[in-house]
Amino acid sequence: MSRTCLAVILAAGDSTRMKSSMSKVLHPVAGRPMIAHVMQAVVGAGMGDAALVLGRDADKVEKAAQIGGINTSSFLQTERLGTGHAVLAAREAIAKGYDDVVVAYGDVPLITPAPFEAARVKLAEGADIVVIGFHTDKPTGYGRLLVENGELIAIREEKDATDEERKVTWCNSGLMAINGAKAQALLDKIDNKNAKGEYYLTDLVEIARAAGGKVVAVDAPESELTGCNNRAELAYIEKLWQERRRHEIMVSGVTMIAPETVFLSFDTQIGQDALIEPNVVFGPGVTVESGAVIHAFSHLEGAHVSAGATVGPYARLRPGANLGAGSKVGNFCEVKKAEIGEGAKVNHLTYIGDAFIGAHTNIGAGTITCNYDGVNKHETRIGADAFIGSNSSLVAPVTIGDGAYVASGSVITDDVPAEALAFGRARQEVKPNRAKLIRERALALKKACSGT
Amino acid sequence: MSRTCLAVILAAGDSTRMKSSMSKVLHPVAGRPMIAHVMQAVVGAGMGDAALVLGRDADKVEKAAQIGGINTSSFLQTERLGTGHAVLAAREAIAKGYDDVVVAYGDVPLITPAPFEAARVKLAEGADIVVIGFHTDKPTGYGRLLVENGELIAIREEKDATDEERKVTWCNSGLMAINGAKAQALLDKIDNKNAKGEYYLTDLVEIARAAGGKVVAVDAPESELTGCNNRAELAYIEKLWQERRRHEIMVSGVTMIAPETVFLSFDTQIGQDALIEPNVVFGPGVTVESGAVIHAFSHLEGAHVSAGATVGPYARLRPGANLGAGSKVGNFCEVKKAEIGEGAKVNHLTYIGDAFIGAHTNIGAGTITCNYDGVNKHETRIGADAFIGSNSSLVAPVTIGDGAYVASGSVITDDVPAEALAFGRARQEVKPNRAKLIRERALALKKACSGT
Amino acid sequence: MSRTCLAVILAAGDSTRMKSSMSKVLHPVAGRPMIAHVMQAVVGAGMGDAALVLGRDADKVEKAAQIGGINTSSFLQTERLGTGHAVLAAREAIAKGYDDVVVAYGDVPLITPAPFEAARVKLAEGADIVVIGFHTDKPTGYGRLLVENGELIAIREEKDATDEERKVTWCNSGLMAINGAKAQALLDKIDNKNAKGEYYLTDLVEIARAAGGKVVAVDAPESELTGCNNRAELAYIEKLWQERRRHEIMVSGVTMIAPETVFLSFDTQIGQDALIEPNVVFGPGVTVESGAVIHAFSHLEGAHVSAGATVGPYARLRPGANLGAGSKVGNFCEVKKAEIGEGAKVNHLTYIGDAFIGAHTNIGAGTITCNYDGVNKHETRIGADAFIGSNSSLVAPVTIGDGAYVASGSVITDDVPAEALAFGRARQEVKPNRAKLIRERALALKKACSGT
Repeated sequence: MSRTCLAVILAAGDSTRMKSSMSKVLHPVAGRPMIAHVMQAVVGAGMGDAALVLGRDADKVEKAAQIGGINTSSFLQTERLGTGHAVLAAREAIAKGYDDVVVAYGDVPLITPAPFEAARVKLAEGADIVVIGFHTDKPTGYGRLLVENGELIAIREEKDATDEERKVTWCNSGLMAINGAKAQALLDKIDNKNAKGEYYLTDLVEIARAAGGKVVAVDAPESELTGCNNRAELAYIEKLWQERRRHEIMVSGVTMIAPETVFLSFDTQIGQDALIEPNVVFGPGVTVESGAVIHAFSHLEGAHVSAGATVGPYARLRPGANLGAGSKVGNFCEVKKAEIGEGAKVNHLTYIGDAFIGAHTNIGAGTITCNYDGVNKHETRIGADAFIGSNSSLVAPVTIGDGAYVASGSVITDDVPAEALAFGRARQEVKPNRAKLIRERALALKKACSGT
Repeated sequence: MSRTCLAVILAAGDSTRMKSSMSKVLHPVAGRPMIAHVMQAVVGAGMGDAALVLGRDADKVEKAAQIGGINTSSFLQTERLGTGHAVLAAREAIAKGYDDVVVAYGDVPLITPAPFEAARVKLAEGADIVVIGFHTDKPTGYGRLLVENGELIAIREEKDATDEERKVTWCNSGLMAINGAKAQALLDKIDNKNAKGEYYLTDLVEIARAAGGKVVAVDAPESELTGCNNRAELAYIEKLWQERRRHEIMVSGVTMIAPETVFLSFDTQIGQDALIEPNVVFGPGVTVESGAVIHAFSHLEGAHVSAGATVGPYARLRPGANLGAGSKVGNFCEVKKAEIGEGAKVNHLTYIGDAFIGAHTNIGAGTITCNYDGVNKHETRIGADAFIGSNSSLVAPVTIGDGAYVASGSVITDDVPAEALAFGRARQEVKPNRAKLIRERALALKKACSGT
Repeated sequence: MSRTCLAVILAAGDSTRMKSSMSKVLHPVAGRPMIAHVMQAVVGAGMGDAALVLGRDADKVEKAAQIGGINTSSFLQTERLGTGHAVLAAREAIAKGYDDVVVAYGDVPLITPAPFEAARVKLAEGADIVVIGFHTDKPTGYGRLLVENGELIAIREEKDATDEERKVTWCNSGLMAINGAKAQALLDKIDNKNAKGEYYLTDLVEIARAAGGKVVAVDAPESELTGCNNRAELAYIEKLWQERRRHEIMVSGVTMIAPETVFLSFDTQIGQDALIEPNVVFGPGVTVESGAVIHAFSHLEGAHVSAGATVGPYARLRPGANLGAGSKVGNFCEVKKAEIGEGAKVNHLTYIGDAFIGAHTNIGAGTITCNYDGVNKHETRIGADAFIGSNSSLVAPVTIGDGAYVASGSVITDDVPAEALAFGRARQEVKPNRAKLIRERALALKKACSGT
């Protein structure tokens, strides 16, 4: 679309019912602040500029709204005098002259580009005002969209509606598109002569029509317009988002045994023929390639899983985990900022952090890369085809060569050359018949402690 | 309410459809026996005494019903001759003379005080019998409440109802409140001249009206009256309980990303602005303070999490775990009966039991407090600002001073003074080119074993 | 039923909407390929032979369809010319002469024996064709079953239906039973004179009736007939399967606190009075005996849990794990191919593989059986009443006798006799005031690295 467009994003609300120490629009959905979702839809609908109308936590909200593909300017709404007043806080931006002005809300994160696109098409066809509506089974409380001959003749508030009008199930979402050339003049005509003394954006319908303009409505799915007023509603929005995205991923050829137990982030990417078992959490920044298997109870964040790799059950991949093709990270293993080479195995009870593990190397159960000295993090480098015995401690910085072998239970503080065997453990001693003595002492202690 | 009240709790059922080795009312909902939930509602409605009508597992049920704020007496129902007969098992208690007598069931654990309070208000206003009813979409099988001029004129059983009466959707829950002064006389008039030869409590409606008394009905939400006859219904009750409590907690200002995967106990307390990720299980006795984060796959029981502390993912806090402000217990860590000091970190693959860990101390990955000698448990005390290297074994009883440093992979059997460094590990040895030999031997063994 | 029966299983579809590298019917439901579920229902309905009509992945599908109780023969459908054509691919099998021929689909895995049994009863009573139908709220798109005087007079396709016929909610499932003696002759009469040029099995209704035969329909629950065309539908089928099986298990006397979070396999067996907490995954081959407790976040596969044993939370039992009565496997423990003796405890952060653990032995936290040398697996044998100290490494092959005691942090490479005490760790050394030096060096390094 070659028309210019300004999105006015209303994000100044106090949101007291959220009972939160931060602005509502900062609360994440799918690991991303609500307002960033709205921005994404706005970008997707081809809008090049956005005016953010801010109040609480203005700096943080401004920052959260920065996403690629759109320029933003910010405006403080210092008083809360209604939606019309809020939009006019961005008067300066509107005055720059856009073909289209679109009004959106920072707390409607499920919106997609489609309704905005539909509204902009109507503007291009000559409408002055386009209201975005939705059909609902439960219209009570919403303003009803009254249409005649294809034009929107009024948004009728519940309290003013006749019995007949109340049966209308097409309702006002609050989202609106305005002819940019006329926007300022129309907005300036909104007055506050009403019971609450507020400036209502919905008055634009009447104002535009009185001026001989055309007002129409377009439709959006009710689910996309779900708003958020408390944390139960936030959870409901998250649920709708997850359901939508899980479905997209499944029909693209990914198996989820129990999709309702898989939690995705806004940017999760999963390749065809991957298998996701129940109870998997994807934090931001995860890509899973084709044919990988993510077993139950796994938790991934900022990680890459190559084709044919296997993760979990109970594996935690933290940022910087990069699993090579056919590699395996198994149960009760944590991998952070580490390359796991092709076909390498980290199967049990292991912590791998700040490390490079070569292809086909086997890391035994209970291995720990001791990467932290209390102040700094250090690297562990392990070559290809190496074998690290169980319960080993690799004290970084340390390098273990290709094909090297570390004996079980070793503490490795010095580099191990390729093909070498390294020990770092004491020789076993046995004291015959001493176990009995230990038990007797322990029982005596117990007796003494219980005072008998 | 200054009126005295006796709750008669019917809990003698055999509950064969539960296919259980214990009485139905002992089965827990939200970590607490069903009957204790009923008792809590009874206490909440201001009843000071309860008569428990018991049968199977009488001793255990009596014990499970003991909660604060109410005195109980117990009565055995030796035969099962109907609800009227069951209530009369508590004749002795009723005879003590109460203003109000309320009949409740031990297997209706979702009941809240509200319906009892409403019923007692009606008694105070002069009713002789108050039936607690519920509206339902699926009335089939329930007795219908027939009301005329505000009075309940009959409870019509399904089989006796006219077509018109069957359309009534207000149904009998079985719960009832009775004028205490008249209770005994009314109850004694119930006979068993019916097909089954049982004494039906519902006959009180007719009996009271015949005696010129006033009978009314009050309403309760259907969900509160959900009964339990098998384990599928038990799961459904648990689900309703969880949904109710999750919603309360969310609207109080707690974020749950996927509330349907968070399981609360009857006494779980969570402060505002806490974040609960998906898949968290709260056993009894947990308090989480404001702003704490409970990551996915965590399991807490009998634990306290202070403000700003972080738990999980995959953390297990067992009874006596007490996490200081800003402290952190991370993945695959178990903490039992231990204080974790302010800002201290227990991040990976660690077992901390019977321990005190000072502020800002860092516990390395794979650390184990060896607290058990096979007979007794011993304590580990670690000071502030200490550093325990990874894969260390701390053999209790042992004390490690402030600022001390334990080298990775050490076994610590003796106290470590403040600011000291402790080692307990062997020096590393390297055998060049020995890895190849090991592999050759292993391959030869494999060949030998496979008989080729 | 003494009548002979051939099941013709159509499993040749390309299933492109699955976007899968394997045939649709190989996708598992409850851990078992879809087609094996269909075979199980077929066996349950007493059919002794099956003709598999195969296309994509013929070899794998043939293999997946092998289950006990039925003989199969395979036929390739090289062209896809409709369901009638597909059935005739098995002409050779049909020609052998069966009393009954039943046509089923490999991608309808929720089917039970009941509808097949009902259809076969109708054949035995003289019907030539029996169509299996289902009642649905959403008939749009399905062929409607038109019945007159108890006979099915037509299957009316949506596009050919009158408004009145479209109101019919009894629909064609595609499953059908055919008089075996007439099957071949009837099937040969199906032609492809229709818009798509395909051979439709449904034409048999008209053909049989034209020949004076009797055609009837029997009913099956809609849920049993749910088909699978993409992975979202696969997930829905899995969900329905899980709900059905969870319900069966619960009403048999097993408590599931949150059944919707428990995932069963096709062969999971759980005894009465067992308790299954939230978030438990059962892979194939698990039996849990009466009164066992499976705590949250557990993952079991190919494992046996004896009466009164306790598993989890966060326990992973892999194939060959065999837990004795009253034994316990606790958090972050993995057990593979190992016997855990009666009353033995493996409580924390442990890997037990290829091992035998005697009765009442206690395995300390962090113990690892080092069972793998990079090539071979070796066994660890531990006697009864032994005590393995925490963080021990047991380097297999190794045997530890009854009542033996292994000190914490030991690496055990040689056998330990009964009642002996074994050490394999270095003596602790303490360097006073050395911690400060370590911190200073670390801070200096940090400073140097940050270039300040």
